[in-house]
Amino acid sequence: MIEHMLHLILLLLAARSFGEIATRLGQPALVGEIGAGLALAVLAASLNAPFFAELSRSAFLDLAAEFGIFFLLLLAGLEIAPAELFRHSGRSVAVALGGVLLPLALGMALAWWVLPDNPMKFVQALLVGVALSISAVPVAIGVFMDLGMVHTPTGRTVIAAAILDDIIGLVLLAILTGAIAAGSVPGIGAMLPLLGKAALFFLIVAGTGYFGAPRIANLISWLRIPAPEFTALILTALGFAGLAELLGMDFIIGALAAALLFNAKSLGQASFARLKATVSDLTMGLLAPLFFLSIGIRVDFAALAIIPGIVLALILAALMGKIIGAGLPALLSGLTRKEALGVGFGMSGRGAVELIIVSIALEAGLFDYPGPVVANLFSALVLMALVTTIVTPIGLRWLFRERGQQGCNRPG
Amino acid sequence: MIEHMLHLILLLLAARSFGEIATRLGQPALVGEIGAGLALAVLAASLNAPFFAELSRSAFLDLAAEFGIFFLLLLAGLEIAPAELFRHSGRSVAVALGGVLLPLALGMALAWWVLPDNPMKFVQALLVGVALSISAVPVAIGVFMDLGMVHTPTGRTVIAAAILDDIIGLVLLAILTGAIAAGSVPGIGAMLPLLGKAALFFLIVAGTGYFGAPRIANLISWLRIPAPEFTALILTALGFAGLAELLGMDFIIGALAAALLFNAKSLGQASFARLKATVSDLTMGLLAPLFFLSIGIRVDFAALAIIPGIVLALILAALMGKIIGAGLPALLSGLTRKEALGVGFGMSGRGAVELIIVSIALEAGLFDYPGPVVANLFSALVLMALVTTIVTPIGLRWLFRERGQQGCNRPG
Repeated sequence: MIEHMLHLILLLLAARSFGEIATRLGQPALVGEIGAGLALAVLAASLNAPFFAELSRSAFLDLAAEFGIFFLLLLAGLEIAPAELFRHSGRSVAVALGGVLLPLALGMALAWWVLPDNPMKFVQALLVGVALSISAVPVAIGVFMDLGMVHTPTGRTVIAAAILDDIIGLVLLAILTGAIAAGSVPGIGAMLPLLGKAALFFLIVAGTGYFGAPRIANLISWLRIPAPEFTALILTALGFAGLAELLGMDFIIGALAAALLFNAKSLGQASFARLKATVSDLTMGLLAPLFFLSIGIRVDFAALAIIPGIVLALILAALMGKIIGAGLPALLSGLTRKEALGVGFGMSGRGAVELIIVSIALEAGLFDYPGPVVANLFSALVLMALVTTIVTPIGLRWLFRERGQQGCNRPG
Repeated sequence: MIEHMLHLILLLLAARSFGEIATRLGQPALVGEIGAGLALAVLAASLNAPFFAELSRSAFLDLAAEFGIFFLLLLAGLEIAPAELFRHSGRSVAVALGGVLLPLALGMALAWWVLPDNPMKFVQALLVGVALSISAVPVAIGVFMDLGMVHTPTGRTVIAAAILDDIIGLVLLAILTGAIAAGSVPGIGAMLPLLGKAALFFLIVAGTGYFGAPRIANLISWLRIPAPEFTALILTALGFAGLAELLGMDFIIGALAAALLFNAKSLGQASFARLKATVSDLTMGLLAPLFFLSIGIRVDFAALAIIPGIVLALILAALMGKIIGAGLPALLSGLTRKEALGVGFGMSGRGAVELIIVSIALEAGLFDYPGPVVANLFSALVLMALVTTIVTPIGLRWLFRERGQQGCNRPG
C-alpha cells in the first residue's frame, strides 16, 4: 500500500514538473508529460534498477489512464460550443475540410503502402489516417494570444476551423473505434453498416441535445442536492457511452458527445463555469498528466532505429497534410502567403484526442500483428504527434517573429 | 462493459434521487443515500431476481466507496479553518469536550458489557465509543440557517464546538485506526505507543503546516501549469497518507490532515474557493452518494430482530451522551434549558466520518468474530447513525417551532 502511494507521488510529481518545464518553453504541458514518461522508460531500461521498472508498471497508471481518457474527452466536449457551429465563413469550412481530408488520404495511402498484409490492414491504415488528420489547436490559440493575433485573419480562421475540426474528429473517432471493435474489415464496402451506425448515434445525440438538454437544465435548477450538474454530466456520459457500445463503437465517444449537451447557454454561465472548472481541475491536475506519462512510458525509441524512414515519412505527411490541406484553401480564399502558412502551422499540432485514439488502438490489440512496421507503429505515431505538436508553436513564433519583437500585447 | 455502465447509472440515479427526497424532507442527503442502499438490499434479498443482486455487488461500488472515503475526508478537512481553533469561548470548549467524552465513555462501557470475550474486544469497544462520540453538525447548521438561528447563543455554541469536535474526531480516528491496524490490544496500557505515534504524526503535520504551507502556496502561485492547487492537495494527502501508514494508522487520516494545510488564508480566496468547489463537486456529485449507498447495502435489518435491545441501547447512549454531555455544560455556562437542549440536539447528528470509521472497521475484519452481537455490530452502528441523524433536524425544528411559524428568515 505504502509503496503504491510512493509510486503515485513520484509519477504525478514527475509528470507535472516536466509539464511545467514544457510550459515555460512555450510548449503545451502534454509534451513535458510524455517526456517524463519517455525519461522514465529510458531509466527503467538502462539502469536495470527494479525500482524504476516497478514505477513504470504502477497499477495506478492504468487506472488513471483509463479515467484520464474519459475525462479528457468530457473536457474537450465542454469546450465546444455547438451553437457556434452554425456561424461559419466559407473560408473556415474549406480550411477545416482540407486540413482533415488531405492528411487522412496521405496517412491512409502511406500506411497502405508500408504495412504488411494482415487481416486488420485496412483498420490500421484508417487509424494512421485519422491520427494524422485530427488537429489540436489550443497550443496555436495560446501562441496567437501571446502575439496578439487572435483577431487577425490567421487567428480567426484557425479558431473557427478548429471547432469544425473537433466535430469532424468526433465522427472519425466514432467510425474508427467502430472499425476496431468490428475487427477485420476487408475494405470500404464493409464500412457502410458502420457509417450507418455512427449516423444513428449522432442522430440520437442530436435529438437528445435538442429535446433533452433544456429539460435536463430545468431539472438541474429544480434539484436541491449539491452538485447536480456534475452528476448529470456523468450520467449522460455513461448513457451515451452505453449507446456507443451498443452500436459497436468505443464507449469514450459517449463522453465527448454527452459534454456537447452541457454549455453556458443550457446551464447558465455560473453553473457551466463551475462544472467546467471541476472537470478541468480533476483532468489537468491529476488524470491527464498520468495518462500522457503512461503514453510516454510505452513509446519505444527503437522505432527510430528500426523504421526510421517510416517515422520520418509519417511526420512529413502530417506536416505537409496540414500545411497544404489547410493552408491552400486559406491562400485561395484571399489570405497572403504568410497568413496562409500561419493557418497551416496553426492546424499542425496534434494533442489529446490523437493520443487517445492511438492508445485505444494499442489496448484493442491493433498492433499485435507480425512485422517490424506494425510492432513499432504505436511508437511511430506518438513520436509523430510529439514532433508536430512541438513544431507548431516554434513555427508560428518564427513566422510572426516581428510581432514578438514589437512586444505588443505581450504580458510581462 | 455495457452491463457495468448500466449498473453505475442505476446506482447513481437511485442514490441521488433518494438524496433529493431526503433533502426535501429536511434531512441530509446521506440519509436518503443510505436509504437507497437499504431498499436495494431488501429488493435483492426478497425478489430473488439476480439483477438486483448483481447491482448490489457492482465492482464500481467498491471503487467509488474507496475513493469516496478519501475525498470525503479531504472535503471535511477543507471545511475546517485551523485559525479559528484559537478563537474559542470556554463554553464551546466545554460543550465540545463534554459532547465527546460522555458518549465515548457510554459507548465503551456499553460495548464492554455486551460484547463477548474475543482478542479484539478492546478495539471493538473503542470503535463503538468513537462511533458514538463524533458529531456531524452540518445538518444542524442547515436547520439553524433555516430558522434564522445562526447568531443565537445556541447556534454560535454548536458551530464553534463543531470545529473543535472535528479536530478531536481526527485524533480519535488516528488512535482507533492505529488500534485496528495493530490488531489485538489487551488494554489501555498497550495503547501508549499508539498514542505516541499519533502525537508524532500530528506534530509532523503541524510542523509541515506551519513551515511548509506558505512555501506550498508560493510554489502554487509561481507555477504556470493549470490546476496546481488540486495536484498539490493530492500530493500532500498522499504524502501524509504514507506517513500515517508508516506510523501504523489508516492512510485516510492523511487526507484529512493534508486538507487542513489548504485554506483561504494560505491559498487566497479565489484559489481556495475553486479547489473546494472541485473537491466538493467530485465528492458530492459522484463518490459520496455511491459510498453511502454501499453502506446501506451492507446493513442487515436482521440486526433489529437479533439484538434489538443492543440497537436500542446504542441509540439511547448516543442521544443521551450528546444531549447530556454537550447540553449540561451549555446549561451550566448560562444558557436557558431550551437553548441547552438545542445545543445537545444540534450535536447529536452523526455523519460521514462516523460511517467511514465503521466501514474501515468492517473492511479490517473487526466484526469477523463469533457471536451474534459482534456479527450484527456493523448494522447496529449504521442504524444508530441513521436514527440520530434523522432525529437531529426533527428535534431542533420541534424545539424551536415557534420560530418556524414566525416564518422569519426562511426562504420562499
